[in-house]
Amino acid sequence: MAETKIDVDPPQSVAVATTRSIELTQVATRSEHDLIGDADVPANAYWGVHTLRAVDNFPITGVPVGHYPDLVRALALVKQAAARANRRLGHLAPAKADAIDRACDLIAKDGRFHDQFVVDAIQGGAGTSTNMNANEVIANVALELMGKHKGDYAALHPNDDVNMAQSTNDAYPTALRLAIIFAAGPLIASLDELAFAFKSKAVEFGDVLKIGRTQLQDAVPMTLGQEFDAYFATIKEDVARIREAAALFREVNLGATAIGTGINADPRYAALAIEELARASHEPMVPASNLIEATSDMGAFVLFSGVLKRVAVKLSKICNDLRLLSSGPRAGFGEIRLPTVQAGSSIMPGKVNPVIPEVVNQVAYMVIGHDLTVTMCAEGGQLQLNAFEPTIGYCVLSSLRTLTAAINTLTKKCVVGIEADRERCRALVEDSIGLVTALVPVLGYETCSRVAKQALAQKRRVADIVLEEKLLTQQQMERLFRPEAMTSPARSM
Amino acid sequence: MAETKIDVDPPQSVAVATTRSIELTQVATRSEHDLIGDADVPANAYWGVHTLRAVDNFPITGVPVGHYPDLVRALALVKQAAARANRRLGHLAPAKADAIDRACDLIAKDGRFHDQFVVDAIQGGAGTSTNMNANEVIANVALELMGKHKGDYAALHPNDDVNMAQSTNDAYPTALRLAIIFAAGPLIASLDELAFAFKSKAVEFGDVLKIGRTQLQDAVPMTLGQEFDAYFATIKEDVARIREAAALFREVNLGATAIGTGINADPRYAALAIEELARASHEPMVPASNLIEATSDMGAFVLFSGVLKRVAVKLSKICNDLRLLSSGPRAGFGEIRLPTVQAGSSIMPGKVNPVIPEVVNQVAYMVIGHDLTVTMCAEGGQLQLNAFEPTIGYCVLSSLRTLTAAINTLTKKCVVGIEADRERCRALVEDSIGLVTALVPVLGYETCSRVAKQALAQKRRVADIVLEEKLLTQQQMERLFRPEAMTSPARSM
Amino acid sequence: MAETKIDVDPPQSVAVATTRSIELTQVATRSEHDLIGDADVPANAYWGVHTLRAVDNFPITGVPVGHYPDLVRALALVKQAAARANRRLGHLAPAKADAIDRACDLIAKDGRFHDQFVVDAIQGGAGTSTNMNANEVIANVALELMGKHKGDYAALHPNDDVNMAQSTNDAYPTALRLAIIFAAGPLIASLDELAFAFKSKAVEFGDVLKIGRTQLQDAVPMTLGQEFDAYFATIKEDVARIREAAALFREVNLGATAIGTGINADPRYAALAIEELARASHEPMVPASNLIEATSDMGAFVLFSGVLKRVAVKLSKICNDLRLLSSGPRAGFGEIRLPTVQAGSSIMPGKVNPVIPEVVNQVAYMVIGHDLTVTMCAEGGQLQLNAFEPTIGYCVLSSLRTLTAAINTLTKKCVVGIEADRERCRALVEDSIGLVTALVPVLGYETCSRVAKQALAQKRRVADIVLEEKLLTQQQMERLFRPEAMTSPARSM
Amino acid sequence: MAETKIDVDPPQSVAVATTRSIELTQVATRSEHDLIGDADVPANAYWGVHTLRAVDNFPITGVPVGHYPDLVRALALVKQAAARANRRLGHLAPAKADAIDRACDLIAKDGRFHDQFVVDAIQGGAGTSTNMNANEVIANVALELMGKHKGDYAALHPNDDVNMAQSTNDAYPTALRLAIIFAAGPLIASLDELAFAFKSKAVEFGDVLKIGRTQLQDAVPMTLGQEFDAYFATIKEDVARIREAAALFREVNLGATAIGTGINADPRYAALAIEELARASHEPMVPASNLIEATSDMGAFVLFSGVLKRVAVKLSKICNDLRLLSSGPRAGFGEIRLPTVQAGSSIMPGKVNPVIPEVVNQVAYMVIGHDLTVTMCAEGGQLQLNAFEPTIGYCVLSSLRTLTAAINTLTKKCVVGIEADRERCRALVEDSIGLVTALVPVLGYETCSRVAKQALAQKRRVADIVLEEKLLTQQQMERLFRPEAMTSPARSM
Repeated sequence: MAETKIDVDPPQSVAVATTRSIELTQVATRSEHDLIGDADVPANAYWGVHTLRAVDNFPITGVPVGHYPDLVRALALVKQAAARANRRLGHLAPAKADAIDRACDLIAKDGRFHDQFVVDAIQGGAGTSTNMNANEVIANVALELMGKHKGDYAALHPNDDVNMAQSTNDAYPTALRLAIIFAAGPLIASLDELAFAFKSKAVEFGDVLKIGRTQLQDAVPMTLGQEFDAYFATIKEDVARIREAAALFREVNLGATAIGTGINADPRYAALAIEELARASHEPMVPASNLIEATSDMGAFVLFSGVLKRVAVKLSKICNDLRLLSSGPRAGFGEIRLPTVQAGSSIMPGKVNPVIPEVVNQVAYMVIGHDLTVTMCAEGGQLQLNAFEPTIGYCVLSSLRTLTAAINTLTKKCVVGIEADRERCRALVEDSIGLVTALVPVLGYETCSRVAKQALAQKRRVADIVLEEKLLTQQQMERLFRPEAMTSPARSM
Repeated sequence: MAETKIDVDPPQSVAVATTRSIELTQVATRSEHDLIGDADVPANAYWGVHTLRAVDNFPITGVPVGHYPDLVRALALVKQAAARANRRLGHLAPAKADAIDRACDLIAKDGRFHDQFVVDAIQGGAGTSTNMNANEVIANVALELMGKHKGDYAALHPNDDVNMAQSTNDAYPTALRLAIIFAAGPLIASLDELAFAFKSKAVEFGDVLKIGRTQLQDAVPMTLGQEFDAYFATIKEDVARIREAAALFREVNLGATAIGTGINADPRYAALAIEELARASHEPMVPASNLIEATSDMGAFVLFSGVLKRVAVKLSKICNDLRLLSSGPRAGFGEIRLPTVQAGSSIMPGKVNPVIPEVVNQVAYMVIGHDLTVTMCAEGGQLQLNAFEPTIGYCVLSSLRTLTAAINTLTKKCVVGIEADRERCRALVEDSIGLVTALVPVLGYETCSRVAKQALAQKRRVADIVLEEKLLTQQQMERLFRPEAMTSPARSM
Repeated sequence: MAETKIDVDPPQSVAVATTRSIELTQVATRSEHDLIGDADVPANAYWGVHTLRAVDNFPITGVPVGHYPDLVRALALVKQAAARANRRLGHLAPAKADAIDRACDLIAKDGRFHDQFVVDAIQGGAGTSTNMNANEVIANVALELMGKHKGDYAALHPNDDVNMAQSTNDAYPTALRLAIIFAAGPLIASLDELAFAFKSKAVEFGDVLKIGRTQLQDAVPMTLGQEFDAYFATIKEDVARIREAAALFREVNLGATAIGTGINADPRYAALAIEELARASHEPMVPASNLIEATSDMGAFVLFSGVLKRVAVKLSKICNDLRLLSSGPRAGFGEIRLPTVQAGSSIMPGKVNPVIPEVVNQVAYMVIGHDLTVTMCAEGGQLQLNAFEPTIGYCVLSSLRTLTAAINTLTKKCVVGIEADRERCRALVEDSIGLVTALVPVLGYETCSRVAKQALAQKRRVADIVLEEKLLTQQQMERLFRPEAMTSPARSM
Repeated sequence: MAETKIDVDPPQSVAVATTRSIELTQVATRSEHDLIGDADVPANAYWGVHTLRAVDNFPITGVPVGHYPDLVRALALVKQAAARANRRLGHLAPAKADAIDRACDLIAKDGRFHDQFVVDAIQGGAGTSTNMNANEVIANVALELMGKHKGDYAALHPNDDVNMAQSTNDAYPTALRLAIIFAAGPLIASLDELAFAFKSKAVEFGDVLKIGRTQLQDAVPMTLGQEFDAYFATIKEDVARIREAAALFREVNLGATAIGTGINADPRYAALAIEELARASHEPMVPASNLIEATSDMGAFVLFSGVLKRVAVKLSKICNDLRLLSSGPRAGFGEIRLPTVQAGSSIMPGKVNPVIPEVVNQVAYMVIGHDLTVTMCAEGGQLQLNAFEPTIGYCVLSSLRTLTAAINTLTKKCVVGIEADRERCRALVEDSIGLVTALVPVLGYETCSRVAKQALAQKRRVADIVLEEKLLTQQQMERLFRPEAMTSPARSM
């Protein structure tokens, strides 16, 4: 019933980036109060005066907290867990607790009101503004659910009730950690799909013999399948690394209050609240063993960001390889063809460019830049708190979002459609000097060196010289040049 | 007249961040064609099929190119300049040139159609998608101005007409450079204002004697005015550095076409187009002396980003200082008070935090992270082009935008309202051991060291010991301890 | 017997940095040969022509490979393991294998000949020059052990015998990984000691009540013991993280030969060689599951370097804290005193500076810089190899060395000697406004806010106002202000 | 005469890296005293007790200050200038001033005693230890020149006399700036030589037609000369940028004393000392306009390091290009051949690798890492001083040294010996699809696109199809395909 009174916003609403300050001149307003004085907020806003101040103070990126649905969802779950714990401890009246609980569900489960999280993602104050934005939105949604008007804080208070037993310093870091756990899921799924796509190609290209290269110089033969299988293996490893690093976020400091000493908190509260958080989020969350340390320490973020950087480095290396292998079509390596996804040039007819790997490279460089920002923010923590956690959150969540998107586009728009130029691969390997390495066990290093030099100088094939000089019979040579002999350990003939 | 046919969008429209793909199922569409095949675009969209492909290929950040109005404006000016040059050379029919010209004016001068620049800011393809997005929007606006329908490319073609004599590889870098010149203006203005605010405070605090500190240890006296004057000086210097670095962007490669050789371009075109660009933009732009080098070189971006990093480092250091000097209110340095701009804590009554300097620190760390991304993108250029220029642009423009915003909030919400705690400043200096340094020229280093140790051990004042031991008369001591004697070079009494 | 013929060099010789090329004009020489031609090397040098070329090609840092004893030791162990495996497989004659084995022992166990590893730590060629330097030194030492002359490669060949069944591309990465495992040991030990030192101080300061601070503003009380215990906890965690990350290096690609396909290797060789390496090094080493991936992948280095960065960030934050807490002695926080380890100023009598934390900060910033270099090197790998592994090794080993040194000096020269200024700590907490937070559960947020404001405005103590206004009795207040009540969760009185 | 008493050390002695503490048990010693107490220093050491403490406190990198001859030289020049100024002002007795003057000459001009600068390059204390090391060495050399014994500080005092009117906080930054100016000279010279080498090659390859590439895809024709000329141009620009940035170091804060207020300094001293420094160093040095700002500001270092980063980025990009262009010899681009400077592989006969470009890449990545360290150090400055200047100096001087070395080896070992594979260049261009672009002005974009597709699908040449379809006569086509037509702007036939 109360439900019907709620202003409707579309499911999965996403707050949008805007740099324009909130204009209040032409809209109906209500008055709220804080330690600075009275202020008018739009009557239909679920956020209140603290949010208003923050929007005014931090017109930085134009990207609001609501741009990160995982964070909004996690904030609601933390508030819900706190309300449930406070209710069980008898500190919060059931009616209030119920309303808060339902409001949090609307945000966390139904994806509503995300557009009310309007404070800038980058803000001063260690997350206080985000926390207060959440408190205000939840309070006002709950008030409507209770049949009250927005702003009727005597009936339900953003701070006293929604924020009960919490401080920004424990509620915000807990929510941020949970948000990262949420956001890591799609990344892992996308990496798994990418790995699978490489594995499929590895199978498909299992019989494509080609020349391997070290230091960009022709080396010895391998199969294109082996090359793609290495991509599969390297990506797959990272899934494990991400899981390990994300597990560090399961330790949270909810209940630490201001600085980790738990001042003014019911001694039973921390354990209860985290238990409720685990239940509500379906994620196994546990209390940090040292709450003071946990309140200021950013180690888990630094490490996790470092793992994202590792993923970025690997992806970038792979995309560099794909661009190299598909270089050409004539004057490059030309061993593979990437799918055509858009026109490449307005001036050069027929030109197609490796735009998908290129965008992945760029996302990788963004992730590496974010990692540096995370590092500097973490290093800047002082004494009992790190004031720069909002930017840490912004960077890690942005990296997660863009990496996931980039990996998905890489898989779908590029990897699954890669084709091998089998003829060219074979021609290049047959033409290569590196083939001579396979003859070393039989002809010796000295002879092979001479043959190699001669082939290079005379622009001839190794095989032709070997046969001409009768170093081996055609049959002997063919045996040594069997693909399976050249692409796996096999010393003797 | 034709004007009235244009779909209305609000002045200064800003495209908004969205990660949702464009949904086409429920809207009217028109069909366009590219090398991949036919595709439906929304009938009311000014962008076309190439933009559609790019939106589909690059769902990365959710931040569209239109989020950067300086870039959109610059793109329109480049297209306008090219059209004017082509008209003067007789390659483009006057009617077409006129329509393009007017369309560009609507975008560049009136700030319209920015919401049509929907391709993601981070994209593969060296800016091709942004360039094509611009070509398509301008073409369709021009078509409407000509009384034609959108998509009637036989009448005016995005590629053949709007992009005439251009390649992405010269049009896009030229536009990006111009955009940075535009965006540097507000940054310089904001820095000037900040410097002025510090200077005003330096005058106001000119007589506030305080203790200087090195390595966080009490050193020798200075005035708070001197401290703030140093901030003025250091910020002011950066205005000069930004101007110098931004000037490097005045060299553009318009006319270079694909790789800088100017293939297929009229030999007179480059000079004419850049002349027109200078005229239209009111910025002195000149042709690069080596167009091949200019087409792939990202040196100006690296250097400019490095200067932004320098600004960031200085701002961060200053904000660290402001936070230190205002630490307390009781158990810290407490020499200055920052204005209260929002409530600091939901759990600690009366707590006010330095949120404005904190957000500046975070923006500084973002800028430093962006600089790294720029560096990696620049290093990743290959042969005749740098494919990662879109991300270079994204980072530099983001840094400019957020730095400017952060500096403005620092000036207005913080610096202009800073107050000195004169009593505490004086008490700390009178209480300090460092005062003894002013007696060295008279009493010698040895005696002063002994007095310092005694003062520290006995928790007494230097002055008391000096008088007790009759090392100086009251009058002598007062003379040595005059502020002007201690805060400027003056060896003898 | 042969032993007596060896040129004597001091035990634990360490090669020294020099940027001067090796001068050959005045020393006796022997002639060696490579693909470029003949060249003279000093007669008493254990290294040969390949090393000579590399010294000539790479006069970069002046820091030779021998500056990293763990790497030299690991190289010798890899060569020893390879020789033993080749002997077991019947590919290497027992006499040669014996001589190589003994030579490797002299280098790895006795620390001799490290000054013969003269190639620059930063070099092109993916480690080829380091590998060849090792091959040559071991060959020539082995030759002398066999009673032969240096350079008599017909009797024992650096390449054919010492490098048998190896490629730089497997031998070098394997050695580098082992070297890092070696070097991680002292780092872990030093962190353990530092953690213990913090724990000892935590116990010692367990009853020192002080004011906690968030965002550099006075917050709520805690004990100095709690503060130091958080340092203990945060450091201790990193020991676990380093162990985990270092374990990734146990997977090696020995036996991969050129590109991981194992071309020309005996199929039994890889398993045998790694088994021998584990035995000789007393470290559990295992074969990588995908040798092609393992040959080019730098993921373990990126992750490990990221963990070192995390250690650096934490240490830097702690040192920033120590410098803040000891700021003063009069005009700062002044809660702790760091030991005096050297004079602080030539101009200011009695000044003592926090030089030990400062050097740790700087080492932390170096480590963070190295991490970036590692990242860029890793990203620069191409196709089947990463050519920049020497610099990755240089950075990681340098970070390990300097971090270990910095932590040791921090523990011994600083932490163990830290003293608390108990009086000041108590005075600051009693004087603080933050104390009022402890009264909130009884007096409510509103009343407490009023008291806080009044105390701040009138420069009075919270306690005085509370008593004056008879909000609480002296006894009630004392009970609320008990340290144990304020520094742990306890909601009710 | 006194000269003969000086312990002899070789000219241009360079202190060497060592991590071992100075062992005092077996050497003759003399006793010195500081605020910690008495300590024995080796009798033959020119350094004294302050240096001893620092060596003990900072066993970090094993790289001593003496590893940077430019810094040692600059320190001596600063001390010399100060002594001359103090003498002119009548504060320092002529005999003392003379001795100091001559001692400084021995160090600065004759390159002696550099091995006495033994404190670690990375140290706490804002350079105090380096400054004191210099004071002690100069004092003891001067004492011997005066016919006194080392340690006879009553006759000449390291602090009172050598350091007269100075503080570490002005003497050290001044010396560091001068050192960088010195070290920038060889870098500029090396860049000039590299640019010249590229220009020579540009001339040599002026008629080598080849295919240009964008995004690694074949684009349109250019000459190899144009490609190398772009390298010339881009390097040449950086010479100008380095000069500009280095000029910022000419502003020094000598005379600022402790915090820039010039406390205890003769008001005439600063101008005189800087005048003498300019005279002695032959470098135009000027006083900073705001000495307080100049004492803590690291802006010049950040900017200069940013310019070095720009040089590094450009060099790395060029070396990436050289490695791409020389990739092969068969299965790569193979357009150029780099000189063979060492054997490439122990397992693959005939393999030669691009080791020189590779080492330059790595140095570039080191420089970029150093730039980050510089950034973090600069950001960490607090209030009136930056305590991390030693590491800033270490990084900038290391970058200068290694960049210069890398550029020299690139020029001499690589660029001057590069050869073009003219046949392959021509074959690739004739075979390329990109050639079709040159036909667009005549045949139109549509027709050309069709021809391009057909050529690609049928693996045929563009020219063959054009002739077969009689789109152009042989003569017409040849005219359009003239190199000069395709590699410069020329729209019409």
